[in-house]
Parts: sequence; structure tokens; C-alpha cells
Amino acid sequence: MSRRIPTGDNRIRDYCEACTYIHYENPKLVVGAILEFEGNILLCKRAIEPRLGYWTLPAGFMENGESTQAGALRETFEEAGADAQIEAPFALFDLPHISQVHLFYRGKLRSSDLNPGPESLEAGLFSEATIPWDSLSFESVRQCLKLYLCDRKRGQYPFHSVALEKCSEDDQR
Amino acid sequence: MSRRIPTGDNRIRDYCEACTYIHYENPKLVVGAILEFEGNILLCKRAIEPRLGYWTLPAGFMENGESTQAGALRETFEEAGADAQIEAPFALFDLPHISQVHLFYRGKLRSSDLNPGPESLEAGLFSEATIPWDSLSFESVRQCLKLYLCDRKRGQYPFHSVALEKCSEDDQR
Repeated sequence: MSRRIPTGDNRIRDYCEACTYIHYENPKLVVGAILEFEGNILLCKRAIEPRLGYWTLPAGFMENGESTQAGALRETFEEAGADAQIEAPFALFDLPHISQVHLFYRGKLRSSDLNPGPESLEAGLFSEATIPWDSLSFESVRQCLKLYLCDRKRGQYPFHSVALEKCSEDDQR
Repeated sequence: MSRRIPTGDNRIRDYCEACTYIHYENPKLVVGAILEFEGNILLCKRAIEPRLGYWTLPAGFMENGESTQAGALRETFEEAGADAQIEAPFALFDLPHISQVHLFYRGKLRSSDLNPGPESLEAGLFSEATIPWDSLSFESVRQCLKLYLCDRKRGQYPFHSVALEKCSEDDQR
């Protein structure tokens, strides 16, 4: 593999001189969900780095062959063992400094039964007053919660698009 | 490289036995824009495969280090030489059968000056009556235009999220 600008392109790529294969690297999409049960919001305590021990909304890297909604539901099941129903897209966060896009749906849990998987130390339902603001995992999670609680008060949930600046937590993802 | 499920994972990945590098493959994000100048919509005629000779909204694979908005503006400049201003996210299309997500913003052109780049045979501004419905490049482009024209009539632009089924054009992308 060498690094050069392929014919017809304008960026340096990893390129195999032998077989002409171009290895494109593109931003990764993280899909997640903000989910309520009787007014309380589902959070998971991370059992893995980065940000082990911090609370997060269920979310993770989207996999090939799935939709964004399916990915958000899969992550919710993997991290919290929760049975969720998506209602609408809620917020998109751009994190260009780490080449990620975080997309959160909003929805409801069908029951309060939680069964955290190996990626979570625990999972829980939090009222607005009990959200662990000082122990959240990522800036996108913090802003997603803030936006959601604000929208819930107004009873209106427009779609949000937010560009996030570099911050220390993100670098660890 | 071998293919196996890494420790702590639940999917088969390309894995280097020598250095333990895991090569994750994730869906690609295509970013684009639906842009107006004096009520007419910008379309570009593709000079490259797939769908050479068909009309498209400016759009392309998002690059590392940029935001979704910046990517949509870059593609607009590369494909149409147009100076655009983004107003809001407009529609997200899931294409799980080709592991892609297409995200379109809506906005305005600052002028009608167009200067199509090497990826476009031409670029033009189309009124609703002149849109070349039979010569559009991709299903996401067709649906994006339909949704936009419908919203414009109502004067309301909610964010749309659409799951697209397998269709022949998409396979060529």
C-alpha cells in the first residue's frame, strides 16, 4: 500500500499499487436513542473504555446491513436488554475532529425490564432530577439529554443538528 | 488477515493475527443538499458512473475531518461550482442493503452562477414543472425532491426519515 491521490480524486488515499485497490476511510456513524419509561430516561453505565464507569445513552457504531433505527434498537438491547420503540429522529451531532456523526432517535420503552449486557455495568431509569450530569460519558449525550428535557417541557420535538467542538471526552472514543 | 469474531465482539471481522488489528467496516454516509435559487432547484448531470448521464442532487461520500454540512457544501461546490447556504437538515434515507445512509440538507444558492466540475456534465436550475423525473440518478434523490416540493407547498419543512428498499439504481452506487 502507498499513499497518493488516485486519478480523478483530490485527496490522498491508501492505494495498492499492485491491484489498484483504493482504501477509502470515511466518518463513522454512531446511532443511539433517548428512551422514556413513565417519564424516566434510560441510561447505561459503561463497562468498557473509553469512559468506563460513566453514564451514557445507549449508542454505538452502526453496522453494515442495518438501518439507523435498527442500529439504535440493537444497541439499546445489547447495552440495556431493553425492549424499545422508536418514535422519531431526534438529534444529529457532528464531531469532525474525530470523524464521527452521532444520530439519536427518541422513543419509549415497552417495559421497565432491564438486563444490561457485557458492555454495561448497570442500566437504570432516571427522572430529570436524578440524571447524573457530572458522570456522563460524552458531550453528545449531555447535549442530547439537555435538548430533550427542554423539548419535553415545551411539548415540541423538532429535529436538532449540532456541531460539537473538540472536547477531551470525545478524544477517547 | 483472517476473518473471525474478536474477543468481546459478536460479529465476524477482518482480523490480523500478527498484530491483532481489527478492520471494522461500517456504513458510509452520503451527504447532499437540495438548494433553491428563486424557486428553482439545483440538479447536476452525472459525468461518472454509476448512473452516468442521469440527474442528481449534489451529494457524495462524507470525508474524514468534516461536518455533514461542510460535506454537503463541498459536494455542491465540486459538482456544481455553486455558492450555497445551508438552512436546515431535511431528510435522512436508510439504505441498509448497500450499507449507506444519505443525509440531505436544504438551503439556498447565493447566486445562479454555476460552474460544474469534472464529476458533472452540466448543472442547472429546475422549476417543479421541468424536473427530469425520468432521468434521476437515485431513489433517494427522487424521494428527496418529492418530499421537498410537497413541504414547500405547505410551507412547512419537518425533518424526514425514510427507509428505502432495495432498488436497481442503488445497487450501482
